[in-house]
Amino acid sequence: MTEIISETGTPSERETGRLEAFSDGVFAIAITLLALELKVPHFESGSDVTPAALASGLARQWPSYFAFFTSFFTVLVMWVHHHAIFRLVWRSDVTLLFANGFLLMLVTVVPFPTALVAEYLRTPAASAACTFYAGFFVLVSIGFWVLLWAAFRKSVVNPHASAAKIEHLRRSYRLGPPLYLAATVAGLFSPWLAMGICSALWMVWAVTTRDD
Amino acid sequence: MTEIISETGTPSERETGRLEAFSDGVFAIAITLLALELKVPHFESGSDVTPAALASGLARQWPSYFAFFTSFFTVLVMWVHHHAIFRLVWRSDVTLLFANGFLLMLVTVVPFPTALVAEYLRTPAASAACTFYAGFFVLVSIGFWVLLWAAFRKSVVNPHASAAKIEHLRRSYRLGPPLYLAATVAGLFSPWLAMGICSALWMVWAVTTRDD
Amino acid sequence: MTEIISETGTPSERETGRLEAFSDGVFAIAITLLALELKVPHFESGSDVTPAALASGLARQWPSYFAFFTSFFTVLVMWVHHHAIFRLVWRSDVTLLFANGFLLMLVTVVPFPTALVAEYLRTPAASAACTFYAGFFVLVSIGFWVLLWAAFRKSVVNPHASAAKIEHLRRSYRLGPPLYLAATVAGLFSPWLAMGICSALWMVWAVTTRDD
Amino acid sequence: MTEIISETGTPSERETGRLEAFSDGVFAIAITLLALELKVPHFESGSDVTPAALASGLARQWPSYFAFFTSFFTVLVMWVHHHAIFRLVWRSDVTLLFANGFLLMLVTVVPFPTALVAEYLRTPAASAACTFYAGFFVLVSIGFWVLLWAAFRKSVVNPHASAAKIEHLRRSYRLGPPLYLAATVAGLFSPWLAMGICSALWMVWAVTTRDD
Repeated sequence: MTEIISETGTPSERETGRLEAFSDGVFAIAITLLALELKVPHFESGSDVTPAALASGLARQWPSYFAFFTSFFTVLVMWVHHHAIFRLVWRSDVTLLFANGFLLMLVTVVPFPTALVAEYLRTPAASAACTFYAGFFVLVSIGFWVLLWAAFRKSVVNPHASAAKIEHLRRSYRLGPPLYLAATVAGLFSPWLAMGICSALWMVWAVTTRDD
Repeated sequence: MTEIISETGTPSERETGRLEAFSDGVFAIAITLLALELKVPHFESGSDVTPAALASGLARQWPSYFAFFTSFFTVLVMWVHHHAIFRLVWRSDVTLLFANGFLLMLVTVVPFPTALVAEYLRTPAASAACTFYAGFFVLVSIGFWVLLWAAFRKSVVNPHASAAKIEHLRRSYRLGPPLYLAATVAGLFSPWLAMGICSALWMVWAVTTRDD
Repeated sequence: MTEIISETGTPSERETGRLEAFSDGVFAIAITLLALELKVPHFESGSDVTPAALASGLARQWPSYFAFFTSFFTVLVMWVHHHAIFRLVWRSDVTLLFANGFLLMLVTVVPFPTALVAEYLRTPAASAACTFYAGFFVLVSIGFWVLLWAAFRKSVVNPHASAAKIEHLRRSYRLGPPLYLAATVAGLFSPWLAMGICSALWMVWAVTTRDD
Repeated sequence: MTEIISETGTPSERETGRLEAFSDGVFAIAITLLALELKVPHFESGSDVTPAALASGLARQWPSYFAFFTSFFTVLVMWVHHHAIFRLVWRSDVTLLFANGFLLMLVTVVPFPTALVAEYLRTPAASAACTFYAGFFVLVSIGFWVLLWAAFRKSVVNPHASAAKIEHLRRSYRLGPPLYLAATVAGLFSPWLAMGICSALWMVWAVTTRDD
């Protein structure tokens, strides 16, 4: 489509449009697949199937709901920030393509640590599951850090992009790796503390998102 | 893409385009994943596999078909209305982003109560399953109510949007929460009444959708 | 996006763009989900796992590959024709929305009869599976027939659309329901004849697709 | 949307936009579905569930992580190249449509050989799994070769497309089939050699991707 609209644009400018659309597609699919982890409760024998048993089976699955909820909003905030970054990008090159690809790979994997927490949060293995979850987001925050570096190189960034906005984005992501690392270490001792930090983090990022 | 088209647009206007595209992606994926609940019938022993047995196995799965059908058109109507709302929105901000995110979260979850009804509609636990289904749509209608509030704030709504259209949308959603609540209460006594109300509701909303 | 581009367009014209994008999303997801039916072969006991056993396990799954292949290209041809129809549509209204929604519902269901054929083609229940498959496409061809009627009503069709093109599309779909019905009846006697007709049909439609 | 933008464009030009968007959708979904192969480890008995056991269960799954990683970046590079090809295409016709459809079919199937390698890489059947994986990419590289032929026919290629760019793309794909064939043969003797060649190939293609 862009091909037709902006015949005067350089190929690199056009690349950004399709890169963003592709990234949005991956974000949209990954965020929707999270809900596949919500499983219908099953019963061993047919005679156990009563309304009360089903209701309590649904209630016992709260770790699934909690993990789904946390991951959904974390990915949503990631999408918002991904968008904020690309609004300041003018061109695309191979480096940006693969920095973005690395982040998208991590986005598609989010349902995996989410399912792990959903399944093991109420078991003795909760600490391993939550440490893995938080540790995975250390990787995600490093992925964002790499994307910020790749996106704000002089050769691709929009020359008219406000330096203040770039600095704002850089600053808010500088805290990601150490905070998720703290959550990872916390997970070794207290699974709930790890999940609490992870939940707090998406809320902080959501609230500090700028409107413009 | 929009970046190139409307260089004169403010960043906030451009945000709406990508927000809608992302929302459409989530709606399209969630509505397609509903069909994953349609499962091929299996047989305990190989000697049971006859054409008649397979045909009757397919026929016995009618609760799946019914739940799929109801949920598919409910999500389709939700998509139509989501679109109708965003046509009147001019800007995007954090509040709208998260009001929309909350609704999208509910959209991605629709396959879960659908699978629950599909599996338990013919069992003694049908009332719990249908109460959960209707109760979930109470949440959805609250989500729409919150989105309407967020979308029609003065700071984001299109100043040229027709007040009559806004009022029409508001009015049609005001009835959502109490009607789904009635279906939820009905589900405690009669699963079929709950599902009947839910089916009637998407039909009413479909028929009362305005063309423009 | 379109909101910004064509401020002079009526809301109904703009609707078509988002309707097509949404439909394309559903087609793209449904066609991709078909591949989920390709399952890795499993072995009862660990000592059975040899290269030769795995190779033969993969080879024995040919009904899956055949069903996947047939359904993939059938959906691809459907997408091409869906596109051809919407190129001639100017406006959107509630009738078109739900005629299109009904067809999309059938598109999302395609993986279900496909999985059925994949699982039962080599069993004594093959005739039931293939009859169901062909019968499902009777429904699909009726869905297309309804869409053609809805799309080419005077109030929504592009007034400059070539009458010859409309007639070409109408004519090619008039044959759908009787031919798939013949395949359905054939399936009761010979599963392979049913699948052969279904395979021949997407090829015929592919070849007779016009370029313009 | 394009319908509104480029009223002067011929229908065939418009086709390319929707063809690309559809292809991007399929790429985005297929690449995201790869992560569904990452499975939460399960334990036979409840008393086995300790943090150490879960950690070691996660570690033992490294073949899944490796297969996922290789396939993710292979598909990402395929998407980049698909895009590079279509930037040079001006029109669409039935031949291009089905050459592209054949490649998309292969893209949707990538999760299948990936799951096969993930499950059998640590078993005695590794050679069969890795031969199948590499053999599948022989098919993919033939698919690309057919697409290149279809895309660069005089009737559809952009007449202003740089002959050097076309030659660059052609040359880089000429090596695909023989190299993947070598990996396939290697797989019969050494599964790791096959996977090593497949990994090396996406890296080479990534590095040799041109920016413009």
